[in-house]
Amino acid sequence: MITVGIVGATGYTGVELLRLLSQHPQVVIQCVTSRSEAGKAVSELFPNLRGHIDIAFSEPDINQLADCDVVFFATPHCVAMDMVPQLIARNTKVIDLSADFRLQDVNQWQDWYKMTHTCPELIEQAVYGLPEVNREQIKQAQLIAVPGCYPTATQLGFLPLLEQNLVDPSHLIADAKSGVSGAGRKAAIATLLTESSENMTAYAVSGHRHLPEITQGLNKACNTPVHLTFVPHLTPMIRGIHATLYATATQEADLQAVFEQRYANEPFVDVLPAGHHPSTRTVKGTNLCRIAVHQPQNSNTVVVLSVIDNLVKGASGQAIQNMNILFGFPETMAIDAIAVMP
Amino acid sequence: MITVGIVGATGYTGVELLRLLSQHPQVVIQCVTSRSEAGKAVSELFPNLRGHIDIAFSEPDINQLADCDVVFFATPHCVAMDMVPQLIARNTKVIDLSADFRLQDVNQWQDWYKMTHTCPELIEQAVYGLPEVNREQIKQAQLIAVPGCYPTATQLGFLPLLEQNLVDPSHLIADAKSGVSGAGRKAAIATLLTESSENMTAYAVSGHRHLPEITQGLNKACNTPVHLTFVPHLTPMIRGIHATLYATATQEADLQAVFEQRYANEPFVDVLPAGHHPSTRTVKGTNLCRIAVHQPQNSNTVVVLSVIDNLVKGASGQAIQNMNILFGFPETMAIDAIAVMP
Amino acid sequence: MITVGIVGATGYTGVELLRLLSQHPQVVIQCVTSRSEAGKAVSELFPNLRGHIDIAFSEPDINQLADCDVVFFATPHCVAMDMVPQLIARNTKVIDLSADFRLQDVNQWQDWYKMTHTCPELIEQAVYGLPEVNREQIKQAQLIAVPGCYPTATQLGFLPLLEQNLVDPSHLIADAKSGVSGAGRKAAIATLLTESSENMTAYAVSGHRHLPEITQGLNKACNTPVHLTFVPHLTPMIRGIHATLYATATQEADLQAVFEQRYANEPFVDVLPAGHHPSTRTVKGTNLCRIAVHQPQNSNTVVVLSVIDNLVKGASGQAIQNMNILFGFPETMAIDAIAVMP
Amino acid sequence: MITVGIVGATGYTGVELLRLLSQHPQVVIQCVTSRSEAGKAVSELFPNLRGHIDIAFSEPDINQLADCDVVFFATPHCVAMDMVPQLIARNTKVIDLSADFRLQDVNQWQDWYKMTHTCPELIEQAVYGLPEVNREQIKQAQLIAVPGCYPTATQLGFLPLLEQNLVDPSHLIADAKSGVSGAGRKAAIATLLTESSENMTAYAVSGHRHLPEITQGLNKACNTPVHLTFVPHLTPMIRGIHATLYATATQEADLQAVFEQRYANEPFVDVLPAGHHPSTRTVKGTNLCRIAVHQPQNSNTVVVLSVIDNLVKGASGQAIQNMNILFGFPETMAIDAIAVMP
Repeated sequence: MITVGIVGATGYTGVELLRLLSQHPQVVIQCVTSRSEAGKAVSELFPNLRGHIDIAFSEPDINQLADCDVVFFATPHCVAMDMVPQLIARNTKVIDLSADFRLQDVNQWQDWYKMTHTCPELIEQAVYGLPEVNREQIKQAQLIAVPGCYPTATQLGFLPLLEQNLVDPSHLIADAKSGVSGAGRKAAIATLLTESSENMTAYAVSGHRHLPEITQGLNKACNTPVHLTFVPHLTPMIRGIHATLYATATQEADLQAVFEQRYANEPFVDVLPAGHHPSTRTVKGTNLCRIAVHQPQNSNTVVVLSVIDNLVKGASGQAIQNMNILFGFPETMAIDAIAVMP
Repeated sequence: MITVGIVGATGYTGVELLRLLSQHPQVVIQCVTSRSEAGKAVSELFPNLRGHIDIAFSEPDINQLADCDVVFFATPHCVAMDMVPQLIARNTKVIDLSADFRLQDVNQWQDWYKMTHTCPELIEQAVYGLPEVNREQIKQAQLIAVPGCYPTATQLGFLPLLEQNLVDPSHLIADAKSGVSGAGRKAAIATLLTESSENMTAYAVSGHRHLPEITQGLNKACNTPVHLTFVPHLTPMIRGIHATLYATATQEADLQAVFEQRYANEPFVDVLPAGHHPSTRTVKGTNLCRIAVHQPQNSNTVVVLSVIDNLVKGASGQAIQNMNILFGFPETMAIDAIAVMP
Repeated sequence: MITVGIVGATGYTGVELLRLLSQHPQVVIQCVTSRSEAGKAVSELFPNLRGHIDIAFSEPDINQLADCDVVFFATPHCVAMDMVPQLIARNTKVIDLSADFRLQDVNQWQDWYKMTHTCPELIEQAVYGLPEVNREQIKQAQLIAVPGCYPTATQLGFLPLLEQNLVDPSHLIADAKSGVSGAGRKAAIATLLTESSENMTAYAVSGHRHLPEITQGLNKACNTPVHLTFVPHLTPMIRGIHATLYATATQEADLQAVFEQRYANEPFVDVLPAGHHPSTRTVKGTNLCRIAVHQPQNSNTVVVLSVIDNLVKGASGQAIQNMNILFGFPETMAIDAIAVMP
Repeated sequence: MITVGIVGATGYTGVELLRLLSQHPQVVIQCVTSRSEAGKAVSELFPNLRGHIDIAFSEPDINQLADCDVVFFATPHCVAMDMVPQLIARNTKVIDLSADFRLQDVNQWQDWYKMTHTCPELIEQAVYGLPEVNREQIKQAQLIAVPGCYPTATQLGFLPLLEQNLVDPSHLIADAKSGVSGAGRKAAIATLLTESSENMTAYAVSGHRHLPEITQGLNKACNTPVHLTFVPHLTPMIRGIHATLYATATQEADLQAVFEQRYANEPFVDVLPAGHHPSTRTVKGTNLCRIAVHQPQNSNTVVVLSVIDNLVKGASGQAIQNMNILFGFPETMAIDAIAVMP
């Protein structure tokens, strides 16, 4: 049994952590903080939790948080980096769902986030929490930076190709489609139902903050600088990311076998049979990444289809997968639900 | 540990039974029958089940079914009534999600379903599987008729008022809104996304088959013949029923207290605090019925808002709740999930 | 040719006025005001208008507005009442889409809107712009209060019954379902796609501001005080209102004929054949109200189904219908589009 | 004034032709044929047309059709090719919305459509009805093959780049997202709201019938065989195609200027300002193609975003644009509506 604190649980990754952790048999949720909602019952803000969680939001208190075995940050960027050093100093484990510790190059981070990083000294020891790459480091980590949603779907789709040098790293394309929950739980016109349903649009084509994160991971996978074009799209659905990935094959290979072998022992990566197409609804509410690899018309263009739930494998589910690994629980504990269909 | 068979599991109540039963710790799914899909892996038809259920559809075989402890019928009406007698004769328990045994009056059944009932002798012993009314009878049942979706939401909303004679039974109105999954998993133009999204429409105003079922339950609740006007609407969402119920109060009463007391011990009925409005998404994927009672503008019109997931509390979840009661398992076992939000 | 000004055109009724008026052959749009967007091209805020409207938002200027033949207010309540007196004083016609002049009883207005009305002296001369009731007065009006969306759908559905004293006025029920655009174009969490799609919920059951407006119209129709229970619901679609109306018949009548005769000469009310059910998508983008009347199960409960597009017949289209009547243009000019289906 | 016949108007391109042609000031709709619906009023099948079209479906009759000035085929493939020769022989103009005459290579057609073409002799004289490429030939055409939906969005996006040899033709990618109406108005499980809403999936990655059509057009644009990878996706919305196109620049160029000049005189292609992202809802119900060109991160990868309404510019609107050109009407007549937003 471990005790858990959650900082900033009023957003979508927060409520998703609460939903999943409240049914985790080895977890006690100790405190859930929110400056804006302090005093309000969690189940009042999130009525799906009525009858399941009987706790109120509290003001963030560093002592109370430090008493937990692990603290999750479900905050916008630039919040965690101010509080993490104190927790680390007191030996509390930290699992940060925000972007603060994802990029190893602090200058790059500062360029993309237009802020001064207040805690650059901890960046190096932060483990990038993609279990399919860093499972061993996660076990020993003090501070885990949970990958972003697009980076999770994109990296898992490209990794088998790049690790084996099967494609040209200088010309990768990721055409990614995200549900609207990727924009978070915040009042905004662009993501009203009236504006974003019955509509499809690309955004941030000139540059999205997840680009350097993805590139960092892909560089490492093939030990060479890759060039990626990344185009995100806002899709009229609540949840789900469908990443359609394009690469140019540089040699013949049984790609189906390559993918199946790469993920043979991964509990949360499901390589579909040859010729299949994954759909986002089959992973909704689950921690799965479903992948299919195609080489249409026998050309040298490889097409990988990779789908996740952006709030589970793309955020809170993966955070708990990291926690399970970190504390020696079965890796799938409390994150093995079946998608509700239809 | 009990063994379970499912007849006709290719529809939405079928896949929902599979999703829920596959994670039930006391259940082994023995056989899943379908004439049309015999031989195909269940997870091929329903890719959400990949990795969770490793069984194929088989031709319905009465011997194989009779060997199960309990058989669920997730079939259209008029299928169960042909097979149930043989199962009952061999002492297999039957939980029928179809309409075949819901109406106690066989003539009424035949009027509404335009068929001759082939097994009228079993109707009397069938228990109407609404645990909030018939829990004791369910424990002893051999054959359970699981209530329909509209009838579940509507009866749970009206019962406290009628049982206590607080409203005029001769003038009840149920304005019910259902998600499209209520129409089942069958090829049809009217329920294409192109036809049913971005649209709202009433249907079957002249008479819907759930009307006599609801009326039968309400009659019994108040020991007097009620008159109900029931107007169903097709709503552009996958799941959920929102029943808005209207009745005329015949005396003063603390309705909030009446509802809270009526359902104080019910694990799956959640009476909201005074002034609240339940929303269908808070019960999506769950076996909950959430209810609020209002008396707007201090008039004598009582408004009850009652929401369920039509495929869970309105079908498969309630079927499993019945099974849990029947076999002495904890009533909430395997049907206590939290709704995924957003 | 007339010149038109629009105050507050950054909301949904504003963009709808712009869409419709820009294709009106007798209209020149002179000025479009917005404090927040002054200087920005209209087509930048509303990209559907690119290539169709070449004008920028300007600061509201009373002189510029007064020079127009008619000024539309597409503002939240309490804006028009401050500017209208100056326009009326200069003989400019005013068509107000807000609630400021809809209620004839200023005290009632102040109770529901929690504000002091700053211009009570003009209330009496304001014509309630429901052409199916007040066409003659509209022709002579200086100031028109365009009905709200719910009030339009509800009144058109109840009027034939009440005008002929066919139902009991003391027990009317309006169960109304609205698309999310009814909440307007403003940043808010509750109407995000993530919150309001795949969901159905009632709201404001205790009392909605459209209740006194509807009641006022119904009282007048039957010359007696009616009692109405009005329950609005938020429906997961962009546009459309489906009002399901319930009343108790007090005498036998051929209701189909009553409705057909009442609306025989109305260009924008379409009474469906007996037994039909209107759907909101058939009126989307149009100024039509489609109505069907039922008497299910031969009971004395009358059910009327009334659908409109809340932003057209429920707001901007009806405003232009008023303008057409006021200036002697053909009543259907520029508002006779066919709904796009699917 | 011309007379028009429509063959097979029970699908979505059919109802869209009816909607648009019924408001075309130079058109009389003479006959609307359907074997399955003969005798039924058009407005009964398509209630949006009630009050606008007062005609019934009739059995297809070649004499009646030949008496029209022009006949539209809104049929599945392999219907037009059986009837067109008789119409051409009698000098009736034909505008075919199906695929029968789109491919100039009959063998390629037969490979992709798995049928013997019954009228190969007319293929050569068929004009491919993309006005932005073939306007002059359309003016003289007897038989017009209206482009498919994906081919329209994709070609309009790639043409400026290929015509000027600015990109490598051997490595083109089109990642296309289509609304569900692209699947047509036919009973099917995969396109039910329950199956296709709240979901994103690629399909036909191994090869889609629009691939050879697109390739044929692109080959011609650059006078060299291109290689295109085309991945279509089913998107949870009714209408709209968003084609995201990727190409590798082979030289420096002011791409914004290239696109603006290419389409400067095109009434239905709107090149957005630099840095913008088109969204499908801004073209819904209109004949517009909106395009933006990007070169993200200053790399040599060009990204073109091209959006259309699949049923208008991608089918029926473009068919009418062809008709307008063919008969010398203003090109935008009856197809210049503004998109309804929101």
